[in-house]
Amino acid sequence: MVPQWLIERKRDGGELAESDIRELIAAYTDGSLPDYQMAAFAMAVYFQGMTDAETATLTDAMMRSGDVLDMSDMPCPTADKHSTGGIGDKISLILGPLAACAGLDVPMISGRGLGITGGTLDKLESIAGYNARLDAGAFRRVVAEVGCSIIGQTARLAPADRKLYALRDVTATVPSIPLITASIMAKKLAEGAETLVFDVKCGRGAFMRTRQDAGTLARSLLRVGRLLGRKVAALVTDMDRPLGATIGNALEVVESIEVLHGGGPADIRALTIDLVAAMLATSGLRADTPALRADLAAFLDNGAAAAKFAEMIAAQGGDAACVDDPGRLPVAERVLELPAPRGGYVADVDAGKLGRAALLLGAGRRATTDAIDPAAGLSHVLRAGDVVEAGAPLLRLHASNAVDPAEATALAAEAFVFSDEPPETRPLVLETIL
Amino acid sequence: MVPQWLIERKRDGGELAESDIRELIAAYTDGSLPDYQMAAFAMAVYFQGMTDAETATLTDAMMRSGDVLDMSDMPCPTADKHSTGGIGDKISLILGPLAACAGLDVPMISGRGLGITGGTLDKLESIAGYNARLDAGAFRRVVAEVGCSIIGQTARLAPADRKLYALRDVTATVPSIPLITASIMAKKLAEGAETLVFDVKCGRGAFMRTRQDAGTLARSLLRVGRLLGRKVAALVTDMDRPLGATIGNALEVVESIEVLHGGGPADIRALTIDLVAAMLATSGLRADTPALRADLAAFLDNGAAAAKFAEMIAAQGGDAACVDDPGRLPVAERVLELPAPRGGYVADVDAGKLGRAALLLGAGRRATTDAIDPAAGLSHVLRAGDVVEAGAPLLRLHASNAVDPAEATALAAEAFVFSDEPPETRPLVLETIL
Repeated sequence: MVPQWLIERKRDGGELAESDIRELIAAYTDGSLPDYQMAAFAMAVYFQGMTDAETATLTDAMMRSGDVLDMSDMPCPTADKHSTGGIGDKISLILGPLAACAGLDVPMISGRGLGITGGTLDKLESIAGYNARLDAGAFRRVVAEVGCSIIGQTARLAPADRKLYALRDVTATVPSIPLITASIMAKKLAEGAETLVFDVKCGRGAFMRTRQDAGTLARSLLRVGRLLGRKVAALVTDMDRPLGATIGNALEVVESIEVLHGGGPADIRALTIDLVAAMLATSGLRADTPALRADLAAFLDNGAAAAKFAEMIAAQGGDAACVDDPGRLPVAERVLELPAPRGGYVADVDAGKLGRAALLLGAGRRATTDAIDPAAGLSHVLRAGDVVEAGAPLLRLHASNAVDPAEATALAAEAFVFSDEPPETRPLVLETIL
Repeated sequence: MVPQWLIERKRDGGELAESDIRELIAAYTDGSLPDYQMAAFAMAVYFQGMTDAETATLTDAMMRSGDVLDMSDMPCPTADKHSTGGIGDKISLILGPLAACAGLDVPMISGRGLGITGGTLDKLESIAGYNARLDAGAFRRVVAEVGCSIIGQTARLAPADRKLYALRDVTATVPSIPLITASIMAKKLAEGAETLVFDVKCGRGAFMRTRQDAGTLARSLLRVGRLLGRKVAALVTDMDRPLGATIGNALEVVESIEVLHGGGPADIRALTIDLVAAMLATSGLRADTPALRADLAAFLDNGAAAAKFAEMIAAQGGDAACVDDPGRLPVAERVLELPAPRGGYVADVDAGKLGRAALLLGAGRRATTDAIDPAAGLSHVLRAGDVVEAGAPLLRLHASNAVDPAEATALAAEAFVFSDEPPETRPLVLETIL
């Protein structure tokens, strides 16, 4: 392999052979291909794209650059969900236990939050004692015994992706559908789940801004997933507005527990049921019928899902008592209210602005090395369609005394638009792609 | 400056500010901007191009990354010629002395050959004692006293270009008009000549294969040269067929001496006069009239140009006696003839194939670290339109006994096409752009 010839072929719009892509990724992983050649290659891919076969090979090569779990011996069909990330997206915490109740085994490897997008791992780690660093053996045992386990990515998960992602971040080559597809899939496929359902988010609080871009990514994920032998489906969902009424780590665990107990915001409950139904239907275990959805609702209403969540926390060394007593989770030193500047309908709520406000309060990271405050964030966030009186709270801000909340408060205030008429209702699920 | 934001702006087709480009090149030169960001930037420029203002700033920044000569105090108007490189292109050796005879001062900094394209420096260094490593003071003195000096590039000439060119070579970002323009111009402008004439070559023996690409590059060079305050002109010339009848270093010096003495191949003589006339006209010293061309021809025919060449060689410590006795130049251990496989007209001669044949004989370099054999190459090369009898020589191959000439001979044979009718004559100068 002469790397510059491969770069040139891609630059000129040609298709690379499977062996070329595998050699490229192997050489990049072992350090014999320098960053500058990979950077030029990534930019050529940005402009020329990749065929599905190329993207599938790239995905497979990046997956095999590290550890790959074999989950074929789990007692139940294995399935997982991946979200491209959004504001207030705590679905995984509810979905794992609910899918386990419904007869799936869910081996979930999650990431940390970066920028305004929260991370499932940070949320779970606000539970005292929760161990997200299980080794492969322990992870498999928890999945087999409980039905779900959520752990963090290790350095041995798709190291080629880790290296390439860091490079793309500093070379303006992030927004490329084949490269995003391979990055998501390489990590997700390494979990070994037979079925994968993608929640591809679009809007002001998401990486993909438009519904069209999100649909393009979703279809790319599905084509590549099928080429690599998995059962796959995708939902394209709205992230113009935040999910639920909380943003921030412990605050989102509290809200998740409410939903697991049959309460909580309607959007969170509905989207979780949609996604679990898609996992079951895609896996072939149960068709997506009203009866299935009634069963899933019952797992939330009768305490089964909450008990499963507690079981998982206990299996990973965490304080399972928080599921019945959320007061045990971290609480901020200071809670402030943001008053409505006028009365009327909340016409719109900007997820991106609230995400940045929560980050400023300490809930998120600007750089991967930043520490987060698990108690910080926003709660009681009003939603579009809510009626508010002038001076009544639009949301609550949670922060430590060390943080000046002025900038976050101003940003949060900017997120709200008001009207005298009720706003049009908008669907959360924009498209289901099976 | 956040480099990835600049890369992103270029990637998305935007125009960079002058300060952005200057900071980028300064950071790249001092090593604080890593190769991988420059590689991504170069690929983005490959796809999105650059405006003339951007290219001019890039050129100026790369030029100022190293030493810049001030030639404004030379006794005569300063002018130089740059060729994009071809097979058998020994024009500089004749052009420098001829332009000096005509009243110009010619400060010429030349490169070495790489690949099939020969380098003026390698040719001159086949003259015993010739010192191409003059320092700036000595270079200025020779130009002022003789009227021309030809030296080699030092590490202090446009180091940013040296670094960027090496990077482009291994990242498939060489064929970009703005990057080529900046690379050529940054080095050429650093010589300090007020007038620059470009010989942009196209065809099988040149970097630019088509007349259209060569014209595009020529126009880009002229626009950027004017933006940077120089007087400029360009000729687009044919390099489908080799220039003259020799390819190889000492062999080309011998042929240059023939032309300097009023003999030699007609194409070499004509193109040299065209280029010197363009230098004089562009500098404003003399209009390009038949009288001027008669004067230039006289300098070749009356020995003045040859004497000037000898004067330059002597000033640079070389064996000036070779100008009257070319037998003093290196001679190959072995000279072979390539017989014509049939009789008839030579219909076509492929410059690229002959260039590769000469390289195989030892006249060129595959890598910058290769040594060359100054005596190796081809001579007595027949040209299109020549009549040949079956078995009569098409050319002579010159090599050392250590070289097996079989592959070069086969390649040289492939370069010739024959016909029963005389081929159409084709012009050497395809376009003159003033």
